[in-house]
Amino acid sequence: MQLTQEKSLNEECGVFGVYGADDAARMTYFGLHALQHRGQEGAGIVAQNPDSRLMLHRGLGLLSDVFSNEQYIEALQGRGAIGHVRYATAGNRGLENIQPFLFQFEYEQLALAHNGNLTNAKSLHRLLEAEGAIFHSNSDTEILAHLIRRSQKPTLKEQLVEALNQVKGGFAYVLMTNQALIAALDPNGFRPLVIGQLPNGGFVVASETCALDAVGAEFYRDVLPGEVVWIDETGIEIFSYTSKTQLSICSMEFVYFARPDSNIYGVNVHSARKMMGKLLAKEAYIDADMVIGVPNSSLSAASGYAEEANIPYELGLIKNQYVARTFIQPTQALREQGVRMKLSAVRKVVENKRVILVDDSIVRGTTSQRIVALLKEAGAKEVHLRIAAPPLKYPCFYGIDIQTQQELIAANYTIEEMTTKIGADSLAFLSEQGLIQAIDLPVQAPYQGLCMAYFNGDYPTPLYDYETEFLHKKNQLRQVVLGETK
Amino acid sequence: MQLTQEKSLNEECGVFGVYGADDAARMTYFGLHALQHRGQEGAGIVAQNPDSRLMLHRGLGLLSDVFSNEQYIEALQGRGAIGHVRYATAGNRGLENIQPFLFQFEYEQLALAHNGNLTNAKSLHRLLEAEGAIFHSNSDTEILAHLIRRSQKPTLKEQLVEALNQVKGGFAYVLMTNQALIAALDPNGFRPLVIGQLPNGGFVVASETCALDAVGAEFYRDVLPGEVVWIDETGIEIFSYTSKTQLSICSMEFVYFARPDSNIYGVNVHSARKMMGKLLAKEAYIDADMVIGVPNSSLSAASGYAEEANIPYELGLIKNQYVARTFIQPTQALREQGVRMKLSAVRKVVENKRVILVDDSIVRGTTSQRIVALLKEAGAKEVHLRIAAPPLKYPCFYGIDIQTQQELIAANYTIEEMTTKIGADSLAFLSEQGLIQAIDLPVQAPYQGLCMAYFNGDYPTPLYDYETEFLHKKNQLRQVVLGETK
Amino acid sequence: MQLTQEKSLNEECGVFGVYGADDAARMTYFGLHALQHRGQEGAGIVAQNPDSRLMLHRGLGLLSDVFSNEQYIEALQGRGAIGHVRYATAGNRGLENIQPFLFQFEYEQLALAHNGNLTNAKSLHRLLEAEGAIFHSNSDTEILAHLIRRSQKPTLKEQLVEALNQVKGGFAYVLMTNQALIAALDPNGFRPLVIGQLPNGGFVVASETCALDAVGAEFYRDVLPGEVVWIDETGIEIFSYTSKTQLSICSMEFVYFARPDSNIYGVNVHSARKMMGKLLAKEAYIDADMVIGVPNSSLSAASGYAEEANIPYELGLIKNQYVARTFIQPTQALREQGVRMKLSAVRKVVENKRVILVDDSIVRGTTSQRIVALLKEAGAKEVHLRIAAPPLKYPCFYGIDIQTQQELIAANYTIEEMTTKIGADSLAFLSEQGLIQAIDLPVQAPYQGLCMAYFNGDYPTPLYDYETEFLHKKNQLRQVVLGETK
Amino acid sequence: MQLTQEKSLNEECGVFGVYGADDAARMTYFGLHALQHRGQEGAGIVAQNPDSRLMLHRGLGLLSDVFSNEQYIEALQGRGAIGHVRYATAGNRGLENIQPFLFQFEYEQLALAHNGNLTNAKSLHRLLEAEGAIFHSNSDTEILAHLIRRSQKPTLKEQLVEALNQVKGGFAYVLMTNQALIAALDPNGFRPLVIGQLPNGGFVVASETCALDAVGAEFYRDVLPGEVVWIDETGIEIFSYTSKTQLSICSMEFVYFARPDSNIYGVNVHSARKMMGKLLAKEAYIDADMVIGVPNSSLSAASGYAEEANIPYELGLIKNQYVARTFIQPTQALREQGVRMKLSAVRKVVENKRVILVDDSIVRGTTSQRIVALLKEAGAKEVHLRIAAPPLKYPCFYGIDIQTQQELIAANYTIEEMTTKIGADSLAFLSEQGLIQAIDLPVQAPYQGLCMAYFNGDYPTPLYDYETEFLHKKNQLRQVVLGETK
Repeated sequence: MQLTQEKSLNEECGVFGVYGADDAARMTYFGLHALQHRGQEGAGIVAQNPDSRLMLHRGLGLLSDVFSNEQYIEALQGRGAIGHVRYATAGNRGLENIQPFLFQFEYEQLALAHNGNLTNAKSLHRLLEAEGAIFHSNSDTEILAHLIRRSQKPTLKEQLVEALNQVKGGFAYVLMTNQALIAALDPNGFRPLVIGQLPNGGFVVASETCALDAVGAEFYRDVLPGEVVWIDETGIEIFSYTSKTQLSICSMEFVYFARPDSNIYGVNVHSARKMMGKLLAKEAYIDADMVIGVPNSSLSAASGYAEEANIPYELGLIKNQYVARTFIQPTQALREQGVRMKLSAVRKVVENKRVILVDDSIVRGTTSQRIVALLKEAGAKEVHLRIAAPPLKYPCFYGIDIQTQQELIAANYTIEEMTTKIGADSLAFLSEQGLIQAIDLPVQAPYQGLCMAYFNGDYPTPLYDYETEFLHKKNQLRQVVLGETK
Repeated sequence: MQLTQEKSLNEECGVFGVYGADDAARMTYFGLHALQHRGQEGAGIVAQNPDSRLMLHRGLGLLSDVFSNEQYIEALQGRGAIGHVRYATAGNRGLENIQPFLFQFEYEQLALAHNGNLTNAKSLHRLLEAEGAIFHSNSDTEILAHLIRRSQKPTLKEQLVEALNQVKGGFAYVLMTNQALIAALDPNGFRPLVIGQLPNGGFVVASETCALDAVGAEFYRDVLPGEVVWIDETGIEIFSYTSKTQLSICSMEFVYFARPDSNIYGVNVHSARKMMGKLLAKEAYIDADMVIGVPNSSLSAASGYAEEANIPYELGLIKNQYVARTFIQPTQALREQGVRMKLSAVRKVVENKRVILVDDSIVRGTTSQRIVALLKEAGAKEVHLRIAAPPLKYPCFYGIDIQTQQELIAANYTIEEMTTKIGADSLAFLSEQGLIQAIDLPVQAPYQGLCMAYFNGDYPTPLYDYETEFLHKKNQLRQVVLGETK
Repeated sequence: MQLTQEKSLNEECGVFGVYGADDAARMTYFGLHALQHRGQEGAGIVAQNPDSRLMLHRGLGLLSDVFSNEQYIEALQGRGAIGHVRYATAGNRGLENIQPFLFQFEYEQLALAHNGNLTNAKSLHRLLEAEGAIFHSNSDTEILAHLIRRSQKPTLKEQLVEALNQVKGGFAYVLMTNQALIAALDPNGFRPLVIGQLPNGGFVVASETCALDAVGAEFYRDVLPGEVVWIDETGIEIFSYTSKTQLSICSMEFVYFARPDSNIYGVNVHSARKMMGKLLAKEAYIDADMVIGVPNSSLSAASGYAEEANIPYELGLIKNQYVARTFIQPTQALREQGVRMKLSAVRKVVENKRVILVDDSIVRGTTSQRIVALLKEAGAKEVHLRIAAPPLKYPCFYGIDIQTQQELIAANYTIEEMTTKIGADSLAFLSEQGLIQAIDLPVQAPYQGLCMAYFNGDYPTPLYDYETEFLHKKNQLRQVVLGETK
Repeated sequence: MQLTQEKSLNEECGVFGVYGADDAARMTYFGLHALQHRGQEGAGIVAQNPDSRLMLHRGLGLLSDVFSNEQYIEALQGRGAIGHVRYATAGNRGLENIQPFLFQFEYEQLALAHNGNLTNAKSLHRLLEAEGAIFHSNSDTEILAHLIRRSQKPTLKEQLVEALNQVKGGFAYVLMTNQALIAALDPNGFRPLVIGQLPNGGFVVASETCALDAVGAEFYRDVLPGEVVWIDETGIEIFSYTSKTQLSICSMEFVYFARPDSNIYGVNVHSARKMMGKLLAKEAYIDADMVIGVPNSSLSAASGYAEEANIPYELGLIKNQYVARTFIQPTQALREQGVRMKLSAVRKVVENKRVILVDDSIVRGTTSQRIVALLKEAGAKEVHLRIAAPPLKYPCFYGIDIQTQQELIAANYTIEEMTTKIGADSLAFLSEQGLIQAIDLPVQAPYQGLCMAYFNGDYPTPLYDYETEFLHKKNQLRQVVLGETK
């Protein structure tokens, strides 16, 4: 099966949890359905059955593949549940790595799901192994369970606090015990996590507000950096497990990952994107016959650019809405003949026209190259590529799947070189300042609370296990960059 | 499984055929994939194997469900193939009705797929039965095969011409014999059908040009009303089986059914829709804070309205892109709580705003009602509904699944009544003249070659089996309409 | 999937029908389950729904593959049903050929399933085609429906009688209309067909009595040659459509096809087989250490041989009971290494022993060769092959899949040659007289009512379409046989 | 899905491993296929890929359900593999419990599969949990991995020896590391485990010799109590991890579990069963018209009884060979009507006859009751039940799923009471001495090396975690038994 990714830029997962509502697992299904864009390679749900036992169903593929039959949901009875949709990095596609994980402790069970990436996973893994821990998966998610298990603290709450202070990096956890739903966010709040309230008083946690809307929950509040949310029969309790916090939410959530109808710290994603397009039009205006966005993630930015530049906004690229899964692949011969499944250029629209093509980011550059070629084959006279974010130049260690700079075209080439490689007639990026201004988080913090590290290498935390490796690479890169910026 | 339809307005099918190309069945898969929007309830492919035998694979569901394994495509070897995606009316969902049909004649085979609806199917069925014909399906597609079989003419070509002169209504047929690929269009050209040519010289026929693009074929020409296209090893032959032709292509293809990147008689669908929006803005301007389209089919019209009215175009409604198939349904309790899977309103965008909502049509009115409510719940101050086509008031007998006027809200209520029922602050439709002008077919014919019957009851052909039934209903309706317009 | 056949000798199908019982389709499932040995490549059930509509579900594979979900049975409501399990000849494995067939007549429906083979199928097919009939399958089962449809008689009963007088060969039909269950047997009764009665008064028809036992029905009576059984709300009616009848039931039903617990014309199959073994011991005694049967079909004969010869009966060959379906095949290398899935020889039992191996028939000889080799590899000192039936020398045209004598080892070689080829230490067959005596049907007719044609070429009917072809081959064979027996 | 068990007496699993052969996973498939009778509820294979990584595929159901596609086997490349077929006790049917388990240690991986039951699992579980171990399954198989992991010994070999000395009860383990295949047997050798050698020199381990035959391996030798078998690129090494050994192999392996073609310590299972039947005929002769065995496990004993008693051996009960899996169940109404899927009595054979029915064991008595009733309904005049083993009176703690005496009819009733309850005309069991003599292991040990505890309560080891619980129950039972035998 081919699982289509918009680009080689992948979020690692979406999480959802609910407590205090009938048919919690079914509600979790619909919550995860609204988060499916955050991961399409696996999904799972753990429910707290009426007798408080935790029950798990998980599998590979889309949510609808995993829950391909009512019976799977019906088996998950009860008033509490957590769920997960997973994006899997290559080599880790086994069923073993699909979350939530369910652990059998002596007197109770613990289920755990995770969005993010730990920067000290290797060290902790090594340490825990040395103490005799056994791991079933390749995922760093198991680590938290082992840390909790090994804590000498008397209560689960204290054990969890101790464990959360040991893991570093970006993480949004949801946990379920036989008595409670728990969520926790890293001290920088790299990944989004929100709380909602149901009409009946029950609570929901989710990676994005769009999942609250999908299940009819009211937005309650964002989970803040360093907070634990503890929901059980007595209600909701929110407390901090650390005071050393500083918001640095992933700016790529606004640029690319999150759904346009989600709000993050009060900022609507569509509106932020539209503003990115507007500011881009101001920073990098060019005269043309039309503005086209790459569907679906760049349509907001494209319409903003068009509006600001007062150039017609057109549908020049069509994305096949049934592309999400197919088991049949074109042969090499068919591919060369021009068989394509995902994007089509609208010849009648772009023929003999000067086109401004708005996209949200460039990773390797190959996708941009392909789309520019598509438009030119369809007769576009000029294609001016405008990227509604700054160039991606540095890896992310907090949960986005970019870990080698070698693959980042902007880390290795100048704008001019990139323009040539991609085949565009011109190329421009939004400035860092433009991005920060477009999002405009109402926060007092560096970069107004955004993590901008992929653009400027300014990581808001130590890198732990990645430090040496990265510094070495960064030095190599610096030379390239210095060479480039001469 | 829930197969999501945009609205209760359904095209009956898409067809594709190819002759003279390696791996014809696989190419047909990709052609049908581009036509999947025309039918999601079943699909099938017949290939002409290297030994000239016809082989069939078909099944229920999306193309990716039916061809869930490479082996199904690999079993369909050869250089010729036809395929079909089906929308099934209720009660006819059995495998028996999935096309293409494959008939075993004494010395040869015939495969047949069909987009459209015959108006004299019942009469012909009765006649053929009286002569001893046996039917395996409920579909009217089998009829053509029986007519061919019973013809006394000496050659298949003559038999086909005789048969095509007996069937009435709207039809685009593709047929495959052990030697040829054949396509045929009804004398009014109600349904679209185009020819493409492959780089290697082979030919393709398809319901829409987007399928030509998907397989790397060049547009060759539209099939004209009353034409037969005959493709075999000697090349392509196009001839007319009747001289009594008059183009009346379904205007709803432009409004709703066809993909925006398809061209019909040289007119691009997206561009026509954008123009519908523009003319609608001229005809029914209203001041507001933003224009929103109902995704995905109304986005072109909405952007046209916004551009013409100079009002910001916003993404105020988000469609879940993974909604195509799910086996899990919300309970009634969850539905009441607000669980929804398909459309979300973007609260931050529409809150306290005056919204112009552009949609392409209203059938029962229930969908519009739901969307208006969604926007109001999300805080929209005003919702002005603008429909980029005239009101649907009459049934279609040529291939769209509207056969009872009772269900058409516009056939039964005034604009004012509809506005109230739907809950909008105002409601306006594009005029008939506006629609014709927006599409602007370069054709000398009534309504510039469009069928406008669903809007004005002006059917371009006799209605045969539907005549009495419809006239009776029409009279009933007239009274209602007259009553209403007092 | 590998569907395991005991040998290259295949019955074409089992049929079952019930009328006047709740949950008729489910009962049909269990009836077919008891007939699964008669065909494993496809299955289907048609039920007469409470509103009298016929509904069909069918598919490829074992019954449990086709009805892999309760929902398939639950969809088939009503008090009447017919079903079919199919053995498919090569090249006819498509879904199109799986029975029952369901035909949509103008005012009613007809479902049809069939066990047997028509000898004038080609002629009728040609004739019907010439009159305009269209066939959907390669099966000769459709023919009866066309004959009924074309009959000028006023009632279905008369139409059916006319049609049954036109088809020739071996056939056991079950039909279902919107009002009745009908069964019919050919004038020679080549294939078995029985009637049972349910505790509640409803009736059942089935290929074998084991299916009556499986659903709790009492044996009512055998269907006799040339009879029609008509069951509807008024009860059961049995009448003859022809007076030219003569029982010639397939002797291979007793030897190999039927289940040991079935009775045919009052004779139990296990008992007949045991008697074949006893008579074989009398006709072809040899001294040995043990008697072994080829599981499962030859165990009765083997125990009969052992009892008569007073030699220990041992389990020297084990058949893997999970062999019915597997998707994984050994590679050639593994096969050469000795990987086997189906039969094992029990080394400790046969080592250094003189073994009498009892089998029920030899078709190509390859299976016998393999089993003898298996026993010798396991250490058997001598293997004396005893076949509990006469040599198979002639094709069958009434429903067994032997149509070419070229493949029958006994048609081409002497006993001595066969012994050498198979690698046995001796080989003997039961005599024709022995077989007739072992079965001992209480019937006044040639061969006591058995068809012995595969053994002696004495076909009880003209061969129609097969006549010329076969006579030609027979002459060729005669020469070979004469040459051999010199 | 209904997975048919012969009776409520279940072995917990079969294991297979191979090292030093191409396509090891495929060979493991065929080895497990021969062991499928030992567990039908789950299966899995771990292969050691060419780069030494371990890869796992496992799932619920029959082997053919789990490996339903060639791709699953093809993904498991390499020259080493282990596999497992599982019988699951109620409540433990989740995928989490399907073996082999695969553990990710820091520098290597460990895969583990297990046949048997630990008597100190609870204590060890508690101990390990107290030390911080986390369990993913309910199975006691994980325990060995934790013990190995926590050992302070420097090498895996020493760690394993230490761990094996900590687990108590019955166990046959197969393990795979990135370098070796390892097998180990408990100090009493409760479960069978054998070594075979392939033509190319590679080695195989398996629960039964029938799996060696299935893959073309020569029997090498039995694994003896307390031995570890270590196979890697340097060859095979066998050593003892304890000197405190005493053979007590499960006598029920001979009576019921093992395949008739397997040999255990040189004794063929079919031959032992036949001898059980012969000795039973000597001990409990009765005059009758025929001897019938309950298929399939009692056919050997029945033929032995018949031979010794010189009474005809008949096929009076037929087992449907397609019963292994079905998803459709009879309704209560159908069940009452007599619908049955598994066993049929052959009326013509047993009618008016005095029948000796031979079975291998009685657990609850309900199956025997059903079969006796079946024969009587089919007309048997008398049914004399003869059991080819002593009465089952005590639970097993070493791997058979009998853990409550309450369910054992023989633990609660006298022979007379049982005869009445079952409805037989007489009932007799083989004596303990008869069973020992029939198997006749060439071993100097109590009971000639057999575990007879289920018959006489003489457990060859301390019972650890089961001690208190069982003693309490045993005392209760003693009273019942004493009361009964007065």
